Amino acid sequence: MTVGMFDSFMTRHWFSSEAKSIWSDVATLQAWLDVEAALAQAQGRLGVIPAEVTPVITGACKQELFDTERLSRDIAYAQHPFVPVLRQIEELCDEPAAGYVHWGATTQNIFDTGVALQMRRTHALIDASLAAASDTLNALAKEHRDTLQAGRTHGQHALPMTFGFKVTGWLEEVRRDRDRLKARIRPSFVASLGGAIGTFAAMGPRGPEVEKEMGRILDLEPAVLPMRSSFDRANDYFSALTLLAGTAEKIAQDIVFMQRTEIAEVEEAFHLGKVGSSTMAQKRNPSTALLLVSLSRMLQARLPLIIGSMNRMGEGDSSATNVADVAVPEMAILGASIAETLARLVSGLVVNKDAMRRNLDITNGLIVSEAAMMQLSDRLGRHKAHHMLYEAAQRSVMDGVPFTTAIAEHREMEGADAVTLDAAGYTGESGALVDRLTR
Amino acid sequence: MTVGMFDSFMTRHWFSSEAKSIWSDVATLQAWLDVEAALAQAQGRLGVIPAEVTPVITGACKQELFDTERLSRDIAYAQHPFVPVLRQIEELCDEPAAGYVHWGATTQNIFDTGVALQMRRTHALIDASLAAASDTLNALAKEHRDTLQAGRTHGQHALPMTFGFKVTGWLEEVRRDRDRLKARIRPSFVASLGGAIGTFAAMGPRGPEVEKEMGRILDLEPAVLPMRSSFDRANDYFSALTLLAGTAEKIAQDIVFMQRTEIAEVEEAFHLGKVGSSTMAQKRNPSTALLLVSLSRMLQARLPLIIGSMNRMGEGDSSATNVADVAVPEMAILGASIAETLARLVSGLVVNKDAMRRNLDITNGLIVSEAAMMQLSDRLGRHKAHHMLYEAAQRSVMDGVPFTTAIAEHREMEGADAVTLDAAGYTGESGALVDRLTR
Amino acid sequence: MTVGMFDSFMTRHWFSSEAKSIWSDVATLQAWLDVEAALAQAQGRLGVIPAEVTPVITGACKQELFDTERLSRDIAYAQHPFVPVLRQIEELCDEPAAGYVHWGATTQNIFDTGVALQMRRTHALIDASLAAASDTLNALAKEHRDTLQAGRTHGQHALPMTFGFKVTGWLEEVRRDRDRLKARIRPSFVASLGGAIGTFAAMGPRGPEVEKEMGRILDLEPAVLPMRSSFDRANDYFSALTLLAGTAEKIAQDIVFMQRTEIAEVEEAFHLGKVGSSTMAQKRNPSTALLLVSLSRMLQARLPLIIGSMNRMGEGDSSATNVADVAVPEMAILGASIAETLARLVSGLVVNKDAMRRNLDITNGLIVSEAAMMQLSDRLGRHKAHHMLYEAAQRSVMDGVPFTTAIAEHREMEGADAVTLDAAGYTGESGALVDRLTR
Amino acid sequence: MTVGMFDSFMTRHWFSSEAKSIWSDVATLQAWLDVEAALAQAQGRLGVIPAEVTPVITGACKQELFDTERLSRDIAYAQHPFVPVLRQIEELCDEPAAGYVHWGATTQNIFDTGVALQMRRTHALIDASLAAASDTLNALAKEHRDTLQAGRTHGQHALPMTFGFKVTGWLEEVRRDRDRLKARIRPSFVASLGGAIGTFAAMGPRGPEVEKEMGRILDLEPAVLPMRSSFDRANDYFSALTLLAGTAEKIAQDIVFMQRTEIAEVEEAFHLGKVGSSTMAQKRNPSTALLLVSLSRMLQARLPLIIGSMNRMGEGDSSATNVADVAVPEMAILGASIAETLARLVSGLVVNKDAMRRNLDITNGLIVSEAAMMQLSDRLGRHKAHHMLYEAAQRSVMDGVPFTTAIAEHREMEGADAVTLDAAGYTGESGALVDRLTR
Repeated sequence: MTVGMFDSFMTRHWFSSEAKSIWSDVATLQAWLDVEAALAQAQGRLGVIPAEVTPVITGACKQELFDTERLSRDIAYAQHPFVPVLRQIEELCDEPAAGYVHWGATTQNIFDTGVALQMRRTHALIDASLAAASDTLNALAKEHRDTLQAGRTHGQHALPMTFGFKVTGWLEEVRRDRDRLKARIRPSFVASLGGAIGTFAAMGPRGPEVEKEMGRILDLEPAVLPMRSSFDRANDYFSALTLLAGTAEKIAQDIVFMQRTEIAEVEEAFHLGKVGSSTMAQKRNPSTALLLVSLSRMLQARLPLIIGSMNRMGEGDSSATNVADVAVPEMAILGASIAETLARLVSGLVVNKDAMRRNLDITNGLIVSEAAMMQLSDRLGRHKAHHMLYEAAQRSVMDGVPFTTAIAEHREMEGADAVTLDAAGYTGESGALVDRLTR
Repeated sequence: MTVGMFDSFMTRHWFSSEAKSIWSDVATLQAWLDVEAALAQAQGRLGVIPAEVTPVITGACKQELFDTERLSRDIAYAQHPFVPVLRQIEELCDEPAAGYVHWGATTQNIFDTGVALQMRRTHALIDASLAAASDTLNALAKEHRDTLQAGRTHGQHALPMTFGFKVTGWLEEVRRDRDRLKARIRPSFVASLGGAIGTFAAMGPRGPEVEKEMGRILDLEPAVLPMRSSFDRANDYFSALTLLAGTAEKIAQDIVFMQRTEIAEVEEAFHLGKVGSSTMAQKRNPSTALLLVSLSRMLQARLPLIIGSMNRMGEGDSSATNVADVAVPEMAILGASIAETLARLVSGLVVNKDAMRRNLDITNGLIVSEAAMMQLSDRLGRHKAHHMLYEAAQRSVMDGVPFTTAIAEHREMEGADAVTLDAAGYTGESGALVDRLTR
Repeated sequence: MTVGMFDSFMTRHWFSSEAKSIWSDVATLQAWLDVEAALAQAQGRLGVIPAEVTPVITGACKQELFDTERLSRDIAYAQHPFVPVLRQIEELCDEPAAGYVHWGATTQNIFDTGVALQMRRTHALIDASLAAASDTLNALAKEHRDTLQAGRTHGQHALPMTFGFKVTGWLEEVRRDRDRLKARIRPSFVASLGGAIGTFAAMGPRGPEVEKEMGRILDLEPAVLPMRSSFDRANDYFSALTLLAGTAEKIAQDIVFMQRTEIAEVEEAFHLGKVGSSTMAQKRNPSTALLLVSLSRMLQARLPLIIGSMNRMGEGDSSATNVADVAVPEMAILGASIAETLARLVSGLVVNKDAMRRNLDITNGLIVSEAAMMQLSDRLGRHKAHHMLYEAAQRSVMDGVPFTTAIAEHREMEGADAVTLDAAGYTGESGALVDRLTR
Repeated sequence: MTVGMFDSFMTRHWFSSEAKSIWSDVATLQAWLDVEAALAQAQGRLGVIPAEVTPVITGACKQELFDTERLSRDIAYAQHPFVPVLRQIEELCDEPAAGYVHWGATTQNIFDTGVALQMRRTHALIDASLAAASDTLNALAKEHRDTLQAGRTHGQHALPMTFGFKVTGWLEEVRRDRDRLKARIRPSFVASLGGAIGTFAAMGPRGPEVEKEMGRILDLEPAVLPMRSSFDRANDYFSALTLLAGTAEKIAQDIVFMQRTEIAEVEEAFHLGKVGSSTMAQKRNPSTALLLVSLSRMLQARLPLIIGSMNRMGEGDSSATNVADVAVPEMAILGASIAETLARLVSGLVVNKDAMRRNLDITNGLIVSEAAMMQLSDRLGRHKAHHMLYEAAQRSVMDGVPFTTAIAEHREMEGADAVTLDAAGYTGESGALVDRLTR
């Protein structure tokens, strides 16, 4: 029996398996133990604890040695998430080592530093998925550099463009997301030591040095001022991750729309055996794109929660850290799943150039009214041209006459040269921008 | 110079003028004064204050007698939102009346009761708009009881239905929204008296009776336990208002989609002079529907804020009530604007039956695959039928053959009677449900 | 290995075990099967399917007969959450019964009705916890009807009250929460049938009758218009549940504050073995109250997500229903856990009357300045009295003289009778309101 | 009559006047005109439009020349926010200049670039306020380097620290906020040109060059790919601004708590004339701190809204940009107001060292139990020491005996040297960290 979206047999396939294995309860326990081991090593090297106890402690810091059922019971009884873990580490060590476990540290130091290790691993997954997505998008943009498509604003045809231009927009945004996450992973997640309130009281003047050495061992920057009541650093990363969710949702919605039955310009990957409905045999739904929208909203909804957890009473506040304890893994797994799903979605995309071309033509030329305006502005002035074309366009819509006819027949055009409208010739810098921004 | 969305010349037309005039600063001042007057009247009647001061106080409680510039300065200086108002009331009264102004009350009592008055007026606007929207939808549903349209799920054609059936769904939801708001307006906004912390300490044993009488004068229920630290009642109304925003956004998005250039099944009201773009003369955007989406999101975003304001330290907490002081008017105006815009949007809707019919046919019959399945289930069993139709449908999609052909040519159908597919005949209870749920 | 807050050994004890067993994956599967069985029974009774297949289908609808590992794989492969379940039901039935499984229904009908069953069970848990909490609060209010305590606004002493009065405020809010939830559970969660888009196309004119009969069997109201694209009903319950979270957070924060080291007026239940810190042996933290704050915020954060899921494209939209599929169980479990934790928190509360009394006296009488004002208003007029007492109070604060002395020495008081200040005598209707509102 | 929090006479003083004047409707109009002027200048220089029209257009781009009442009416009628502005610019220019206004641009280009100008000015305000706040906090930290205070976790005394240490924590977080904002202002807000959908179709191959030149004139980076459907860049700044709100809320809540009647360790600035209550003359509320909390929550609530506006249909979507059009000014003004209020709050802070010292002592020594543990760990081992001290601490709490006595009398201590507990000596690196992190 399992509860919760990550484990339930109905939904577990929505989420990155690798991310889930980074954040499983035993992996989290191991992250804590890795920090305890690094702490003992740092303290051993610096002579804060006897050098000979370090290997004993390190040897005990393996999650498979722990009785997690007993941990679960003891945590519930003690109403403390870590003291029972400490007790088991101590039991696994002989004296005198047991006495030097967790020397001068507080629970939150271990948790925060453990999260830093887990976030770094999660970031590697995200980065790899975004690299893959970028490569796919880069190739797709080049391939469709000149594939004509209707540009649409406010749900209406606007101007012609190329599909490659559109994809370049996706690509640029994914690249910025990737750059932001890369720039923030190290400053956002640091090695924290400092004890109960961050003063290093239990460790004395060597405390900051131990923190730095522990960070060196774990390849993390030191917090320097390791206050548990300060959470802005981590939230900087989670904000950037939420922007990635915003990007992913936008791309996914574009695809859902372009796959609409009447539009049919793209289709996400389909395989025989993929089912759209229990009764409607014909359904080929954009399930992956829709799932990506869902995952993105689920991540976005957690941002206010985690930002709200910055409000921490005094020097520590479990009402806030409890929230972070569960929201951080959720956001991490969601972030990795979004990146992975995005990469999969774009890599399987089937493009229907004919449909793109067909849709471009359905407005009888109205889609290039701007081109007409640019031509007529010289003759009539910009404002008069807009006014005339507005009348011609409304007539074209209402009476169903081709736009060029409506223009030609407008009283302002008497005796004037006809306007030529060519959608394919009005894509502006679409191709040049693809060239400039792809590799 | 004005700042803020309600007053700015760029956006002021988005919002209900009537709602704005209910919540303007001078109208808010008048609501407070109405409460002070009712309080004096109640206390006069019950002999808590001398009967002869009541008309004096009542006479002073007119906002046009107040110097709002001075109020503004004094409020900023005192860092208190109401003491400067009290001072001006007192100045407008002769002694001894001045001494009996605000007798035994606290600022928050006046504010909460004033909000109750303003919310009741706002509710009347909302209710009238929802009544109008319901009437329009009711007529629209009946008119299009049998207008064929594609039903769509996950962005893909699913089954045929009628447009009247769709509209009935909108109607039912709007009706439920209206019923919810109606049921909650009185219990959510009550007459509050009770002084600094709700104990009626300054008024003594007659306090609860005064609260009741003041409520009677203002046509409000008494709070009974007038705690300023309790805000669940008001939030029950704001939650229902947010559900209305959810309904409005869904309807608006349906319309935006149906107006898409390629779909063209409906168009929102258009008049010559409505402009879609500064350069693209042809643009006829669903601006009203898109605005309705925007307003709905703006309201929804304020719900967590106002629910968060339930968290009030001890017996009163301006960090929470400051938030409510500004979020309540915003939500009220947004709610009224949403209801008004929704009513306007649906009343101007132009329906293109031909486009609906045309779109229904574009899948070569796939949209009635379920009908085929119901026919074949008897012959082949449900599971086998689904399997066969799945294969036929995929062939139809991939090879472009009509669905009936793909079925007829499937090996399972050898020697069997042909399947007949008729979209018009497969709308189920669409019409009957319209009949049942419209008036 | 488990992932996710409900199952992880670190946090699983935060959540109601009973609620988790209602929403485990196998319990969810059983809820779906219960709906399929009820559907077959209703259709058998009404002659829509052959009466003899009903017991066969019913017999197959037992989750322990299902291979959930295979389900998991098949769901991932089909990218459909229910077709693989259907296949297993069919395998468990002989022909012809297999052919009549899920007759005329769509996946979402089964899911929505299953959720209705699970929500009803969850509601029963919540209601029982709120009943227990109310009983405790009722008794606590009566016990402390006259226990003096400082009333506080904006973090500062305001007026005296009794602790019983404060608790009555909590009680009234919990009662309203309970009433709201009770009123909404049936209208919010209904029996839905209607097939792919709600038209009952696959079932024909008997469809609405089948829906009603299925509802009767499951003790649910029928949806009547079973549109999958409409989610306002369920959200009405979730809004009320979120208000409960607001109530719980407010009560919990009150307790956290009253347990502050310097205040020490209450303490939540403590047992030897409860640990506050891995290094600070003295810590007795309000862990339960802080956890309750955390759970409440976690629930509140999901409200915008579930309200956002009202925005559903056309007649069905998995981008929204995916979100509901995971947010509904989360909100249900969180709601039940909040109610349960609230009941436990208040039942274990230890009240320190001496500390309440001691704190009441620390302002040298300033806390009853309002009493002084009410006495002096008769003599000096309300405004002058406020002014004089303001000066005296500031002097008392700045120079540390008792408030009565500062008043007596004020120039306005020359020759006047002294003001008497008695905190115990200025609790207003505290006791009377307790009497009136408790049972 | 004004509506809305920024202008209402009740609340206008909450907000930065300078920020409001940057975002007033006429200032916004001027920002648009500045962009139009820069566009004309860039195009004139590059020969895209005749050089002689540039000064004419520039001369017309002064908001005081515009009829805003007419604008307001025309905008409502056209349902377009900018075409009426264009018309007035054209009227202010003679031909041929009128024909070259807004050449090749689209409304959204002007709006986005105008916002960039306004955000840069807003950022300067924010940066100045944060600089001031940092200076104050830096001095405060140094002044109170050694001022003893209780460190508190979970609402309970934890360990001694110094007030300077606490303030250093605030300082570090404010500094990081400032650094983040500074790093993002330029990349987040850029010069956008590209016309209707970003292809530069109306301007041709010189478009990108014009964008760059226009950016140079306005001192902004060019967008390069000026897609209106991409909003991640701006949101990166708004995320950082929201983190500032998180910081401000945390600091404000710390101050509210420390000013609590029973704690009384700090008091925010007070002046005679500041009023806490209409009836309670004694009230000295932390009004500024509470207001800062309110402002911070108001900003935080808008982050999901603005992040949600990243979801833009196709190449442009007014349902999203409408939201940004009003949320951006709100967030900008809130951000500036938060920074300004924070600077004012900390600059007026009155510190009561005696109260800090007094509170430190109220636990009879329990606050240094960790010090005892570190001493006893050597003798007894860490685990045994924790266990013994836990028993002694609980005895101290329950029986009221001093902690040192409870330790001395514990059976484990028979015959052992007494433990010495000295709060002043157990502040760890408090002072050293202040030295290291202040200037």
